[in-house]
Amino acid sequence: MSLTDRYYQVRKRSEQICSPLQTEDYVVQPVVDVSPPKWHLGHTTWFFETFILKPNFMGYREYDPDYNYVFNSYYETVGARVIRTDRGNLSRPTVIDVYRYREYVDNAMIEFLCHEPSAEVKELLELGFNHEEQHQELLYYDIKYILGHNPLFPAYDKHYKAPLFEQGEAKMIGIAEGVYEVGHAGDGFCFDNELNRHKVYLNAFEISRLMVTNAEYLEFINAGAYADFRFWHAEGWDWVNTNKISSPLYWHLIEGHWHYYTLAGLQPLKLDEPVGHISYYEAYAYAMWKGMRLPTEFEWEVAAAQFNWGKAWEWTESAYLPYPGFIKAPGAIGEYNGKFMVNQKVLRGASDATPPGHSRSTYRNFFHPNLRWLFNGIRLAR
Amino acid sequence: MSLTDRYYQVRKRSEQICSPLQTEDYVVQPVVDVSPPKWHLGHTTWFFETFILKPNFMGYREYDPDYNYVFNSYYETVGARVIRTDRGNLSRPTVIDVYRYREYVDNAMIEFLCHEPSAEVKELLELGFNHEEQHQELLYYDIKYILGHNPLFPAYDKHYKAPLFEQGEAKMIGIAEGVYEVGHAGDGFCFDNELNRHKVYLNAFEISRLMVTNAEYLEFINAGAYADFRFWHAEGWDWVNTNKISSPLYWHLIEGHWHYYTLAGLQPLKLDEPVGHISYYEAYAYAMWKGMRLPTEFEWEVAAAQFNWGKAWEWTESAYLPYPGFIKAPGAIGEYNGKFMVNQKVLRGASDATPPGHSRSTYRNFFHPNLRWLFNGIRLAR
Amino acid sequence: MSLTDRYYQVRKRSEQICSPLQTEDYVVQPVVDVSPPKWHLGHTTWFFETFILKPNFMGYREYDPDYNYVFNSYYETVGARVIRTDRGNLSRPTVIDVYRYREYVDNAMIEFLCHEPSAEVKELLELGFNHEEQHQELLYYDIKYILGHNPLFPAYDKHYKAPLFEQGEAKMIGIAEGVYEVGHAGDGFCFDNELNRHKVYLNAFEISRLMVTNAEYLEFINAGAYADFRFWHAEGWDWVNTNKISSPLYWHLIEGHWHYYTLAGLQPLKLDEPVGHISYYEAYAYAMWKGMRLPTEFEWEVAAAQFNWGKAWEWTESAYLPYPGFIKAPGAIGEYNGKFMVNQKVLRGASDATPPGHSRSTYRNFFHPNLRWLFNGIRLAR
Amino acid sequence: MSLTDRYYQVRKRSEQICSPLQTEDYVVQPVVDVSPPKWHLGHTTWFFETFILKPNFMGYREYDPDYNYVFNSYYETVGARVIRTDRGNLSRPTVIDVYRYREYVDNAMIEFLCHEPSAEVKELLELGFNHEEQHQELLYYDIKYILGHNPLFPAYDKHYKAPLFEQGEAKMIGIAEGVYEVGHAGDGFCFDNELNRHKVYLNAFEISRLMVTNAEYLEFINAGAYADFRFWHAEGWDWVNTNKISSPLYWHLIEGHWHYYTLAGLQPLKLDEPVGHISYYEAYAYAMWKGMRLPTEFEWEVAAAQFNWGKAWEWTESAYLPYPGFIKAPGAIGEYNGKFMVNQKVLRGASDATPPGHSRSTYRNFFHPNLRWLFNGIRLAR
Repeated sequence: MSLTDRYYQVRKRSEQICSPLQTEDYVVQPVVDVSPPKWHLGHTTWFFETFILKPNFMGYREYDPDYNYVFNSYYETVGARVIRTDRGNLSRPTVIDVYRYREYVDNAMIEFLCHEPSAEVKELLELGFNHEEQHQELLYYDIKYILGHNPLFPAYDKHYKAPLFEQGEAKMIGIAEGVYEVGHAGDGFCFDNELNRHKVYLNAFEISRLMVTNAEYLEFINAGAYADFRFWHAEGWDWVNTNKISSPLYWHLIEGHWHYYTLAGLQPLKLDEPVGHISYYEAYAYAMWKGMRLPTEFEWEVAAAQFNWGKAWEWTESAYLPYPGFIKAPGAIGEYNGKFMVNQKVLRGASDATPPGHSRSTYRNFFHPNLRWLFNGIRLAR
Repeated sequence: MSLTDRYYQVRKRSEQICSPLQTEDYVVQPVVDVSPPKWHLGHTTWFFETFILKPNFMGYREYDPDYNYVFNSYYETVGARVIRTDRGNLSRPTVIDVYRYREYVDNAMIEFLCHEPSAEVKELLELGFNHEEQHQELLYYDIKYILGHNPLFPAYDKHYKAPLFEQGEAKMIGIAEGVYEVGHAGDGFCFDNELNRHKVYLNAFEISRLMVTNAEYLEFINAGAYADFRFWHAEGWDWVNTNKISSPLYWHLIEGHWHYYTLAGLQPLKLDEPVGHISYYEAYAYAMWKGMRLPTEFEWEVAAAQFNWGKAWEWTESAYLPYPGFIKAPGAIGEYNGKFMVNQKVLRGASDATPPGHSRSTYRNFFHPNLRWLFNGIRLAR
Repeated sequence: MSLTDRYYQVRKRSEQICSPLQTEDYVVQPVVDVSPPKWHLGHTTWFFETFILKPNFMGYREYDPDYNYVFNSYYETVGARVIRTDRGNLSRPTVIDVYRYREYVDNAMIEFLCHEPSAEVKELLELGFNHEEQHQELLYYDIKYILGHNPLFPAYDKHYKAPLFEQGEAKMIGIAEGVYEVGHAGDGFCFDNELNRHKVYLNAFEISRLMVTNAEYLEFINAGAYADFRFWHAEGWDWVNTNKISSPLYWHLIEGHWHYYTLAGLQPLKLDEPVGHISYYEAYAYAMWKGMRLPTEFEWEVAAAQFNWGKAWEWTESAYLPYPGFIKAPGAIGEYNGKFMVNQKVLRGASDATPPGHSRSTYRNFFHPNLRWLFNGIRLAR
Repeated sequence: MSLTDRYYQVRKRSEQICSPLQTEDYVVQPVVDVSPPKWHLGHTTWFFETFILKPNFMGYREYDPDYNYVFNSYYETVGARVIRTDRGNLSRPTVIDVYRYREYVDNAMIEFLCHEPSAEVKELLELGFNHEEQHQELLYYDIKYILGHNPLFPAYDKHYKAPLFEQGEAKMIGIAEGVYEVGHAGDGFCFDNELNRHKVYLNAFEISRLMVTNAEYLEFINAGAYADFRFWHAEGWDWVNTNKISSPLYWHLIEGHWHYYTLAGLQPLKLDEPVGHISYYEAYAYAMWKGMRLPTEFEWEVAAAQFNWGKAWEWTESAYLPYPGFIKAPGAIGEYNGKFMVNQKVLRGASDATPPGHSRSTYRNFFHPNLRWLFNGIRLAR
């Protein structure tokens, strides 16, 4: 695929994800982890404008200097922010303004891409594509949160289908003790946190072929495990009690029957589907209760060829830390991954919100252990 | 004016106030005291539906039972709220949905008003009109806050004119000691907190003919009074330091020149205009610094005939408390005023955001002493 | 009594109050409103050292300049505070150090008082005596809180007797409409907030001869009034729910029987005693539930000659505001009262913790409406 | 050494550490991470009473059942806590009460140890000894915090000597790539978190022979690194800005000269001493600024034989996670370590507050990354 085609494809996909939304849905930010959809659309545009067009496209005229305050995210390197305001408080730029901004930058990019860019710029482009794809995944999380926390429970798309999943007997896969190589190999794109490929020593272990189901998780709930400190980390126990957690996010007990909110609206809970929207604390407690544990990210990576993965991010026991020889890129791009490498847990796999072609068995996703709005699940090991 | 005409006039005015807004402006809630404009439009409609149509209009069919959760405000009497969520997180009902709701209820109300209602219903109607007028005033405050806290500083209406104000020499008006009557008199509408009319004993006092100007307030700023504890209440001093307050709300020092945000956009500060958007703490500190004080609400009411008032709410020294013989109405309507009678200060007057015909010299407005987003000002006494 | 005798008597009384304490009891600060007893002992000493000895006693040598950081309270005028630390974190100066400080200052004061001081100094001395008496009252509140919130429920003094109270039929006293004079009269000491004596106009009212009893308050509890929003201010309702309040402070339901913690230890609740340790919010809600109200401070003062008062501070409906013509004294002494005149409620009367001779019918005590650790009660009016 | 001698030695050492304290120093809790010294003395006693005496010493009579509420720490298994109160608010039991409690339990323990206990009890005893030794280390941290945050800066012991440290050229030690064994080996005591001994694969790395000094750390400060986001984790950057951190804990810039608080009192900063009392965030930022990194806990353990360690805990890059095959013990003892294995960082080494004989090169200490009151330091790797 040409660079122009790839650019066009990535950019249009973000807009397609937003196409079922009402204008108002683009604006709100119910919790700090969720961003308004219009912010995602603007921020990904700002990335191409700031890192590709402004430094590399001679004669390019910035769309609006104020947008730097509005659509910059965590990039401390690029400009000061004059007014500190929460994203969810900004009614302007309007949704139409943001689409105009996208159009303006897209036109400039298409023009810019008429000439073969340098290798360095191509690398930044590839990062920009993957960056926008990451925000596409977040768009699904955030849209689900925004609509799923509205008392009217509006559907995102009444015909949205839950991902297919594997059923059957949950046999364990055995992996032998030894030295294994992990981390990204080959010439394809990867994020800096997947490098360098390196050796790890693994003890023998077993990992489940299947994900934990809603039916299995209900047993954990019905056994009273949310009220039994023995299965929880001290921090998890505090989290459960402070937030009065007693079931996964989006679950609602309505007249004695469990329902859950999906992108197609509120539905009766399907027992044979994999459980989702649980925190790391809950995944860990479930594993404790089962007398098992979560896999480490390296166990997962080594075993991944032997099971089907990819419709939910799987919590691992691993903390998000640098690989041997990890080096932060200089400048704003270097802020991408390294600065988050403390107090977060690695998730492996991919979800049904992950863009096609965006997943790899070496991909390291990471979130704080209390977060539940991402599309996740549990695979056990021992 | 017929009841139908009065109804129509009040209802349209709310929509006219919102007519310059973009859809997105209707949705956000930057701080807890501000409500999204679409909430005001829905809540005032809910008032007529709940208190007039449902109990009194036979055959009326509720527009949507879920709207009770969304548009109920502080009325604990009327139904439980299933999902506790902040107003600013609700993208649905959309703005168009809310206008449809208004249209539906308006049509029913017009039909209902074809027959002369009972005296009791007329009283509720009058309360509904005044209730909506209060929300019209809040709409101005909230819209100004939403746009004035956006880094793009969009104007509400580029042609919006600041209210006329009286200039000249700030002579003091003297009032003699004695027993005076205060509180609402006559047959016209008033809120329950203006009753009963009763006698108060006032010592001799003087009150200023004019409001404090920006120029005068700048002297207070330039004298370092924001950093001098002697002029402040202990709570005011904490408030100044915790929130790093050093000028009125909406003031911005840009390259050495004071500007302020108005509904017409950001403008150079006009020195001869009355100062506005200050907290009670600041009004009090200014008065201390001047060696004067704020009037009590009764001093204000007794003297009001002798000066021009009405383009800004004036902080008084009085706490918001019940008048002798005050009785809360039974039921949800009784929650209107009485339950706020602690820890708030009375403001007297009216602002340029006050609907025509909504002001009275006996009107008791009230806010917490730290609030600044209302349209207010300072008149001194001694 | 000579000034020396009066000085000696006041100072010794503070130490007598503390005599049953263990060293550890002097140190802790369980909540922000409570001060450690050793702080009271040091702060009252600091008052005499700072305002009498240092400016007036030639050759006086300050005991320890660091003590200014430790024992200054809210006096912003006197010196900066280098290290901001909570009183309850300070293990040093030790209790013995504080008693040595008292002894040093007392010796200097006795010597200073050998010569008749100036009228101005005498006025400050009188303020110092009354200041220390106020802290004696707070010592009882704070000691009770410290011991009463310890899981071992230690007694302050096993032989401590609850105050005598009047029983009998709770007849109402009627007061006629008219102009009355309130505020301090005569030559005796009073605080600045009791001045100036001035006229007020009162409507006819009735006020109860007796305080509300535990038995009567239990009816309120048993009627479910803590869970019925109708009786509460909006802020009171929030306070009840946020803090899960369902009975007065120090009440404990143990195996179905109400007990309460007294300075003599935990005891079964005595039904005929006046209810105490309730917030203004609770006092107000009780009055609402009874179909009555709290008196204003002026009603109370005018009627006070006709009932027995003095064993509990009585919440009034009045906000704590300046009297007509109130003027703050210049300098640090001026910080005494005026700066608290916002968001507090007036209590009238006196408690069994009030030092003998410290009470007056014009005395204005004041606390925030949520506070309960003071010795208070409820008298109804209508 | 006999069990009785070992018991006696451990128990006396706790009391010796506290011997320079004033009674008041035993009581306060300036921040949540610090416990009052008397609580440490009581809690370690409660451990022997609860886990040794009550289940194993027939006829033993519990000293005071209420002490379970007071001296239980994080052991959810053992009894409910009736009154939730902070440790620093408890004036009772007094210090003398706690020493009496120690004496009572010590006498019972000495009697109990007259007979050879079972192997299982011996294991618990060994855990009890090590548990008390851990609290001895915490006693030093907490005492330093209590005295070092007092505006009078009292010394713990004027003759307290800073630990000796190695000086000279900071050469790097090289370690070859390969498979290494880590974790506790042999029969001696270790905590459950040091098991199982297992293989890890390490890449080649270098580690510094010496700790970072105050002089080196001052360069980092003087280079403005506390104000340069590039060296910090995103969370570290928030922490620095929220808490206005600009130097290590206990450092004070007094009239242009750096001082620091030591257990011997406030002293001029000694440039050649190792820097201490820094958070993991600061240790990481320092390493980034130097173009190096912190070692992992396994690198540290493998290299430890080649450098002198043991006068400060050294932050590692490793998260605190279970070793392969880690199993929590059943019951209350199982709450010891496993439940903290999330969001904490491992420190290796030992400090001058570590009891003699308590350190091992496999010992895994752990703290949250923001904590600074422990005795720690920085060793670099690359």
